[in-house]
Amino acid sequence: MNASIITIGDEILIGQIVDTNSAWIAQELEKIGVKVLEMRSISDNKIHISNTLDCVSDKVELVIITGGLGPTSDDITKSTLCEYFGGEMIRNKNIEEHIIKLSHLRGLAMLERNLQQADVPNNCEVLFNDNGTAPGMWFEKNNTVFVSLPGVPFEMKQIMSKHVLPLIKSRFKLTAIYHRTLLTRGYFESVLADKLIDFEAELNKRVKLAYLPSPECIKLRLSSQGDKYSEIKNLVDLEADKLYSLLEQSIYGEGDEKLTQAIAKLLIAKNMTIATAESCSGGTLASLITADAGCSKYFYGSIVAYSNEIKRDILNVEEEKINKYGAVSQQVAEAMAKNVQKLYNSSFGIATTGIAGPEGGSALKPIGTVWIAVADNQDVIAKKYVFSQLRDINIIRTSYTALEMLRNFILTKK
Amino acid sequence: MNASIITIGDEILIGQIVDTNSAWIAQELEKIGVKVLEMRSISDNKIHISNTLDCVSDKVELVIITGGLGPTSDDITKSTLCEYFGGEMIRNKNIEEHIIKLSHLRGLAMLERNLQQADVPNNCEVLFNDNGTAPGMWFEKNNTVFVSLPGVPFEMKQIMSKHVLPLIKSRFKLTAIYHRTLLTRGYFESVLADKLIDFEAELNKRVKLAYLPSPECIKLRLSSQGDKYSEIKNLVDLEADKLYSLLEQSIYGEGDEKLTQAIAKLLIAKNMTIATAESCSGGTLASLITADAGCSKYFYGSIVAYSNEIKRDILNVEEEKINKYGAVSQQVAEAMAKNVQKLYNSSFGIATTGIAGPEGGSALKPIGTVWIAVADNQDVIAKKYVFSQLRDINIIRTSYTALEMLRNFILTKK
Repeated sequence: MNASIITIGDEILIGQIVDTNSAWIAQELEKIGVKVLEMRSISDNKIHISNTLDCVSDKVELVIITGGLGPTSDDITKSTLCEYFGGEMIRNKNIEEHIIKLSHLRGLAMLERNLQQADVPNNCEVLFNDNGTAPGMWFEKNNTVFVSLPGVPFEMKQIMSKHVLPLIKSRFKLTAIYHRTLLTRGYFESVLADKLIDFEAELNKRVKLAYLPSPECIKLRLSSQGDKYSEIKNLVDLEADKLYSLLEQSIYGEGDEKLTQAIAKLLIAKNMTIATAESCSGGTLASLITADAGCSKYFYGSIVAYSNEIKRDILNVEEEKINKYGAVSQQVAEAMAKNVQKLYNSSFGIATTGIAGPEGGSALKPIGTVWIAVADNQDVIAKKYVFSQLRDINIIRTSYTALEMLRNFILTKK
Repeated sequence: MNASIITIGDEILIGQIVDTNSAWIAQELEKIGVKVLEMRSISDNKIHISNTLDCVSDKVELVIITGGLGPTSDDITKSTLCEYFGGEMIRNKNIEEHIIKLSHLRGLAMLERNLQQADVPNNCEVLFNDNGTAPGMWFEKNNTVFVSLPGVPFEMKQIMSKHVLPLIKSRFKLTAIYHRTLLTRGYFESVLADKLIDFEAELNKRVKLAYLPSPECIKLRLSSQGDKYSEIKNLVDLEADKLYSLLEQSIYGEGDEKLTQAIAKLLIAKNMTIATAESCSGGTLASLITADAGCSKYFYGSIVAYSNEIKRDILNVEEEKINKYGAVSQQVAEAMAKNVQKLYNSSFGIATTGIAGPEGGSALKPIGTVWIAVADNQDVIAKKYVFSQLRDINIIRTSYTALEMLRNFILTKK
């Protein structure tokens, strides 16, 4: 079954809000075997809406529409759909009662504008909205289903989960889809692609491989579809096993797992703790770690040392070392990692020092030069990187690379 | 001038990533007077790409395409466009040199796969990509311009800002648009709307006002369009003056200025410096400050203290205070702010301590309870907030509220 997702609203076309509904809907449809062929964002305009429905209904069996169902004058989706499908508006008593109850609960005056939310086309199936006043609507025309939902994310999600997805599953025979997403760290995309040339050549024709790079990792997504779920699951699992053999510990997790969470698991299992000393990453490394709930179990804290004096006075890096080798050097990175481990009395210390830019670069140490070190109370390792010309990229790459080095260091400590 | 934005990539259609590029591009186009009629997301599929180009080129004079330009086999945008516009691939020497330089700088082996990024259609204008290997491309056909850009946001943005927007402005006659965006901090949206009731009633009919709330601030955007730039500029400037009289120091800046940058200006002007002590904000406050180039002039660093022991041992908060009042208290927040100011020998110290969640809440101190303090070597102020149930929201609100309190504190020190 193929689908199209349409978002209606001028605020999206002027970039005022980012459309996150479509991605969520696509994920949910994909899980039940519905393939999204296309997403569109269009304006609150009658002709534009009708033309778009004409255009997509030839191509897909399911159209999910969000937005434009509010009580204000620029919301014209409902009346446009009513006319498009040749129906008439009638007041729905259930919805009317629900609206009166909601207004009462919220202590609001009962406006006719709000009661009109209970008017629905008489040729649709009403999908009740527990969390708001605008109901969802299910229309059918020439073998295509059109579902209209409110744009408010939590209202849309509730109607999708409670009504739309179950209805689709019960009324249509769907193709099975199976995915696995392996999260890798340690290879550049081109190097990884080279390493996987043979793998790709031998990849089962029914399984697709996609590379999805981000500053955090490169995701390798294996997917397949067919009639039998168990069969495609087997195919994908076999290929995933091969990737694990090829890439070994470069795969740190699967699905939505974060690199910080993969590290958290290792630390908790070993009852170990970390602290960070950050120069060029400036607190971003700590903020990635503290984004995870429960991090106080293994994270003690960080010292952001943005000047040589602080590196000397708080992190106890010898002034001589800074003067001799410079703040961006193997020696200073190692001292920072060792000293923060001691200072916080943690199992591991992680340090970053580099030239984030846009100023401070030199011929020998250009912008983007970063030293990262990881230490425990016995060993220390340090590595030099040259990332980019851009400050934000250098900061985020430094932070994720420090996490990668920490993970590898922990793994050597088995 | 009307435009259409097309995003190419299967990862969007399965909901794996949210398309943020389109909103950014729409914003930038709107600023120069280009109206976006439609956005589409389509798959990495030759026929689908060609059909979509056919379809939109009838309706608009400008098509911006992002995505599908990577070095791997699923990236087919470039070859598809080359064929669609009837060109041939040729190796571009400038791009080849740039790729070799980038690989060298990053210490990577030179793969043919990467060099192929230097192959471009001979019927396009190449838009150089300073930050990556995939160049942008500018095609023209039947009075419609088609621009293809990489999907990686920072590469796309750089090519848009440096090449595409200036080219559009120089080659087309656009309707004059004038905006001013005033950045406010300190009012909730509903309170601000109430305060501006009379202003809105008297607002010139040719000027539009929009409220754009974010965790950082509420932006008030005044805009107007017309034939004469000087005329609409005057109208908007008059209204902006009125807002300044009404809102006074709640307006901290205009346009794209960040709250951290507004504070940086104050600090640099007074030759003053800051340091932070972070518990619940966990490094995010420091990361916001260090995102700005040149911050080492006024930022010394931060101590992220995620345990009571660290608050005691490194931030010198008396253990008795922590035991008596709890880590989330006025007393501990004030001590953290005062002590970090002394420790780093900065003009100001800023401290956060709170319950970010999802665990650790109680009846007296529910999740979202946060104390923030700001100190110099004489005074200290502290304030309690209760933000939300969500960890990420609590962390970001704490950080921006701490910046707001710092700014107000500095302004009292005139």
